[in-house]
Amino acid sequence: MARPRSFDEEEVLRAARDQFWTLGYAATSLDDLMAATGLGKGSLYGAFGSKRELFLRVFDEYSARAVEDVSKALAGPDASAARRLRALVLAEARARASDPKRRGCLLAKATAELAAQDKAVAARALATFRAIEDQIVACIAGAQRHGDLNDRIDARRLGRALLATLRGMEALGKAGIDEAALLEIAQTAIDELHFGKATESSRARRAR
Amino acid sequence: MARPRSFDEEEVLRAARDQFWTLGYAATSLDDLMAATGLGKGSLYGAFGSKRELFLRVFDEYSARAVEDVSKALAGPDASAARRLRALVLAEARARASDPKRRGCLLAKATAELAAQDKAVAARALATFRAIEDQIVACIAGAQRHGDLNDRIDARRLGRALLATLRGMEALGKAGIDEAALLEIAQTAIDELHFGKATESSRARRAR
Repeated sequence: MARPRSFDEEEVLRAARDQFWTLGYAATSLDDLMAATGLGKGSLYGAFGSKRELFLRVFDEYSARAVEDVSKALAGPDASAARRLRALVLAEARARASDPKRRGCLLAKATAELAAQDKAVAARALATFRAIEDQIVACIAGAQRHGDLNDRIDARRLGRALLATLRGMEALGKAGIDEAALLEIAQTAIDELHFGKATESSRARRAR
Repeated sequence: MARPRSFDEEEVLRAARDQFWTLGYAATSLDDLMAATGLGKGSLYGAFGSKRELFLRVFDEYSARAVEDVSKALAGPDASAARRLRALVLAEARARASDPKRRGCLLAKATAELAAQDKAVAARALATFRAIEDQIVACIAGAQRHGDLNDRIDARRLGRALLATLRGMEALGKAGIDEAALLEIAQTAIDELHFGKATESSRARRAR
């Protein structure tokens, strides 16, 4: 018989996530997790296994959410794809600058702390970055089809470069780089998607 | 009278650094530090104060070295500034890809783990990133003066964008992004420094 659960799993996972996010994995003790979730050791371990398994569960949910957020922000018709990319990059700059806790992104934080020692964390981080890259690449390809972005450069190549910029903004934001600098980096990355755009746009070519 | 030191301080700091670098700050115990350095608690604390003070010392030395490395790689005449930038960015991509320990950069790792909780770490990380940015900006300005790079865009702006790309490569490399992808990101960033370069180069203008 399954162990009865008398707690809100979603709420417990959120509390555990915030604990790991603020302190990091190693610095979070079982006592911290018990205090944050309001659960005893037996309930926590009964439901989630171990501290590591609880962390991986939190990390998986965070990563899935990160991919979902990018996917939602970038999904739509080709005609507005360039606008959606621009909005995403600027929103990212603002979010990094306005994070008073300076926790940054849990995906980046956990990768920094654990990827060297925990292959499961590294593999999940890599899969997440790839999924985010795929969303960005698809949106760039849409904007290229519509003639709004540089289409002399492969969408995968532009997408990877943009992903690197986004992760760099995260890293610099965590150190406290100010909003103006982050917005300038974001705007430069957006401009770079346009540089080299064929003078005769693919839209004009399609019209023939 | 100063406490006599019968150990090689540089060697001890290097051993402590490697310990913090591999495991992170919180996961490194006093026992780990004693085992790594071969020193007892009394000698360690006598010489360096506390675990945090020892870490800050290590972090300061690592950061100073990081700035120095970039400075050395980028110093030189304007005529070869673009080549030096290119070499730096490609070397960074290769270094990130060929790091079997996946420890990434200690500056990034410590910032991810501690910037949210330790203002001293955040302040040092910010100062280090700014100093690296200054080196990159100076080299870009040199290449612009020589007519090798886009000079329609402010060197500060291009330099910040390049710094973000470098930090993004670090973050992605830690997750295990392969060398080909990292080199592509690096090459795209280098290309982007050239995009928008005035057709009539500043060199031609200077020649008149």
